[in-house]
Amino acid sequence: MIKKINHIGIAVSSIDQALKLYTGVLGLNLKTMEVVESQRTRTAILPVGESNIELLEATDAESPIAKYLEKFGEGIHHLALEVADIEEALGEVSRCGLPLIDEKPRAGVEKTRIAFLHPKGTGRVLLELVQS
Amino acid sequence: MIKKINHIGIAVSSIDQALKLYTGVLGLNLKTMEVVESQRTRTAILPVGESNIELLEATDAESPIAKYLEKFGEGIHHLALEVADIEEALGEVSRCGLPLIDEKPRAGVEKTRIAFLHPKGTGRVLLELVQS
Repeated sequence: MIKKINHIGIAVSSIDQALKLYTGVLGLNLKTMEVVESQRTRTAILPVGESNIELLEATDAESPIAKYLEKFGEGIHHLALEVADIEEALGEVSRCGLPLIDEKPRAGVEKTRIAFLHPKGTGRVLLELVQS
Repeated sequence: MIKKINHIGIAVSSIDQALKLYTGVLGLNLKTMEVVESQRTRTAILPVGESNIELLEATDAESPIAKYLEKFGEGIHHLALEVADIEEALGEVSRCGLPLIDEKPRAGVEKTRIAFLHPKGTGRVLLELVQS
């Protein structure tokens, strides 16, 4: 069902500031920067092997990332696992009784289809399923 | 400098309980289970593509994981990036002025050599460097 880690999402106050660490010190490359209007989030994508680090910055105070930062501060926000077939994966997760944030896939960055599981069913880990 | 994501460490109250999600629902395989006495931690390793998910359980109340769970509850604990040469990587990180938890590499699971950066220099992300 799971092919690989698609990405790790990291909530940051400032992508520009965070890039000093991820590109400046650690030497990763910035592949793309994208605003997801529906999520009020700016996302910087940095490839690491077959996976990515996604830096997530709020575009306004109503952004889920702004609310996360207010509550928890900066840090690792979610873990995204890549699946071959997201409908099948969501069906399986549902059958096992796990609560979902997204009952149906929605659009993610880079033309992916994504869905979040509810952290109350996953030991407080915000798990995202991604189909490329 | 960075080759890939070596693993994501997830702090859990009970590995047995967490495996119901990671193996039972998500279909990952449990590769090994190992106690790191020096860290008072039991670690379950589950491969995901070229990376691993590491489930971390405290072996007693003095474990860093027990203290983490008490303070923050269950959730994603750290992100481990694999490097070719950990001394070189630590030197580079140090030269850039980032504070370290481990000035020198120490033994990790599966005969790896590891070192943690201090989260105050990394936007509260607990970053581990790993040499296989």
